[in-house]
Amino acid sequence: MSQSKLYELGAAHAATLIACRELKSEDLVRSCLERVSERDTDIHAFAHLDALAALAHARALDSGPIKGLLHGLPLGVKDLFDTADLPTSYGSSVYANHRPVADAASVAMCREAGAVVLGKTVTSEFAFFHPGPTCNPHHRLHTPGGSSSGSAAAVADRMLSLALGTQTSGSIIRPAAFCGIVGFKPTNGRVMSAGVKSLSPTLDVIGGFGRSVPDAALLGAVLTGDTRLMDATAQDLDNPPRIGFFATPNWGDVDADIQTAWMYAEQTLSKAGASCNIAPTPTGFESLVQLQKEICSYEMAHSLSHERLRHRAQISAALNGLFDEGMKVDGISHAQNLMLTQEWRQKIQQMFVDHDVILTPSTLGEAPLGLDSTGDPLFCRSWTLLGLPCVHIPFATGHRGLPVGLQLVAAHGDDHRLLAAAHWVHQRLTQ
Amino acid sequence: MSQSKLYELGAAHAATLIACRELKSEDLVRSCLERVSERDTDIHAFAHLDALAALAHARALDSGPIKGLLHGLPLGVKDLFDTADLPTSYGSSVYANHRPVADAASVAMCREAGAVVLGKTVTSEFAFFHPGPTCNPHHRLHTPGGSSSGSAAAVADRMLSLALGTQTSGSIIRPAAFCGIVGFKPTNGRVMSAGVKSLSPTLDVIGGFGRSVPDAALLGAVLTGDTRLMDATAQDLDNPPRIGFFATPNWGDVDADIQTAWMYAEQTLSKAGASCNIAPTPTGFESLVQLQKEICSYEMAHSLSHERLRHRAQISAALNGLFDEGMKVDGISHAQNLMLTQEWRQKIQQMFVDHDVILTPSTLGEAPLGLDSTGDPLFCRSWTLLGLPCVHIPFATGHRGLPVGLQLVAAHGDDHRLLAAAHWVHQRLTQ
Repeated sequence: MSQSKLYELGAAHAATLIACRELKSEDLVRSCLERVSERDTDIHAFAHLDALAALAHARALDSGPIKGLLHGLPLGVKDLFDTADLPTSYGSSVYANHRPVADAASVAMCREAGAVVLGKTVTSEFAFFHPGPTCNPHHRLHTPGGSSSGSAAAVADRMLSLALGTQTSGSIIRPAAFCGIVGFKPTNGRVMSAGVKSLSPTLDVIGGFGRSVPDAALLGAVLTGDTRLMDATAQDLDNPPRIGFFATPNWGDVDADIQTAWMYAEQTLSKAGASCNIAPTPTGFESLVQLQKEICSYEMAHSLSHERLRHRAQISAALNGLFDEGMKVDGISHAQNLMLTQEWRQKIQQMFVDHDVILTPSTLGEAPLGLDSTGDPLFCRSWTLLGLPCVHIPFATGHRGLPVGLQLVAAHGDDHRLLAAAHWVHQRLTQ
Repeated sequence: MSQSKLYELGAAHAATLIACRELKSEDLVRSCLERVSERDTDIHAFAHLDALAALAHARALDSGPIKGLLHGLPLGVKDLFDTADLPTSYGSSVYANHRPVADAASVAMCREAGAVVLGKTVTSEFAFFHPGPTCNPHHRLHTPGGSSSGSAAAVADRMLSLALGTQTSGSIIRPAAFCGIVGFKPTNGRVMSAGVKSLSPTLDVIGGFGRSVPDAALLGAVLTGDTRLMDATAQDLDNPPRIGFFATPNWGDVDADIQTAWMYAEQTLSKAGASCNIAPTPTGFESLVQLQKEICSYEMAHSLSHERLRHRAQISAALNGLFDEGMKVDGISHAQNLMLTQEWRQKIQQMFVDHDVILTPSTLGEAPLGLDSTGDPLFCRSWTLLGLPCVHIPFATGHRGLPVGLQLVAAHGDDHRLLAAAHWVHQRLTQ
């Protein structure tokens, strides 16, 4: 591969080349930086970048021992994660000049594994709906999704091969879908949350993006410390997975592109030997979207109390609206909502007795036109509430030429089995 | 009550007087500050204090409408919580000069309810075992317990009537017990964690201290937004509680003082009409202490990755030891430990079918002699792991004249019933 196209390399491939000393981190980082400088004036994926620091870090790594699984790999970090050597604005003018004193735990862990933080990627305001300037790399008039907009766009546009994101409603799966890449949301509680702006302790989860399942799994293995996540994608499954097709009570909201992708998936995966069955809708499942919304509004309004009380004038109308909504949910209802969530997290286990994974929509369709909205997280809310691991699988193109795909969901803690199945499915659907 | 003794007032009582405009917040704050200035050169409960700002805030509150449940009440804030207008050191020289940009969510919520932050109270280093300078107000050569050392000591010594704390192993219940006050640890996930140094997402919980159950409940109501917590202590129970006496598999470690308190509680509460039965030990319960230790070490070592990697020389030997231990727990074992914890959190519900609350030791005995250790959280670890709400009830005196008590534990989410029972029990045991 010519030096000028190094930015095309996937993370796992590049990591192998660097570990064998067949590729220098500095060359890879420089290639990615060139790609950024060529593309990002159009895409606006980065909020903060320090090219010189990244190159210096890469050189230092090239002259030292292999530190870990991410040795020498450029990493994009959503601007919701604290970084000690780069500004951190959480997508808000309230923190325009903020420089934290420490790296978020997940950022420090990636650096410990050898990652080179290339820059901070754009997030919507406090990871809610008010968008940043990022465009969809497939069509600049369309949203990249949110809130991890910059991370998804940068990976999709090959400015780098790995990036960190977070999900509170649909902020990993939705931008992955709109940008046509793999997004991985681990089981709740698996990744240390220290130093990431806390919005909703019940819902927040840290994950990441790659262009392939093994790449996303590599990042997942570092974030969780669980090497099974990576090993799961190193070879093919012994047996094809048992896949539960779950249209959800909101199937009426998906467009023809998703319906076509759904049918294609069913035919292709069945032919490849997977057991594809319809997963019955658990009684009451339709209530989960509203439950997630109430918990999200209550917890965001309270978690962001300092901003709500002291910086209201610098907060968007959308977020102030959420604050008003959240402050209307009284504490007793919230306590009951938390109890209901606990019960549902137990009850949903039943769904995975007959299925290894659930296949279900990620989005209503392609990325919508316009940059004033980041699209609807409707099909992500329930899984976020349930705390289950999810992977978005990109494999089709919609009527406007934008990416389309579906998500896989697994049982609580089954992250490694989810990624193994996701790799199997992704390979079959993109053959 | 003479102006000079205002610091003796309990929080709920003072709040009522202030709300009726029979007491000025400024007078109360000044009295507490005088008490601090008289006592804290000996006790060392405060890490940072801004008397002028507190008095100015109190005056502003006196001239405005009643903001909320804590209107005008002085509040101590453990120095693990971010504060925008006071330094925040997390008990470590690494953050000696740190001033966060925002208040922790819980601090902002208390201010929104009208609290006057008097100052930051001493925490052990990153809320682990390396102690701060705080002494036990009952005997200065004894530990006040940790990690919420300053909050417990300040409330016990009547420097103020309410203070915030956190518990990851036993950091609310143990200092409450050693200082002879009420400590309340809510159900996991009830209090927004934003802006509190994150040590272990699985275990960390925010709570508080008061000298009576209604005072602790008042603070709990503000932190959770759940007014049932406060209402629960406003009147006596209709029916005496069903109390499960649970000696735990570690009963052999308690001393004669705890045994005496235990027997006294059994006799007194039975006589008062409570149904007192022995709660059988759930099979395998003895494994929970070790499970909590492993999760704590893994998660603290990873949550504090930035400090572990960049500031090792400024970290105590005790905490570096924990880091080494935590880094030895591999990610696969940790994932399995999290799954086990989930199973136990389900399974323990069975314990509360026949009992409204469980009565169980808080500590091995009185506060140990010496300030180089904060004592053993042995009897708190399992309940922290299980995420259940706990209250320490102080009611006896040990052989050295130091306070002794027991803790009550309730089912997940039963915080209001726990506090109602705790109030009932506390009144009977201190009559």
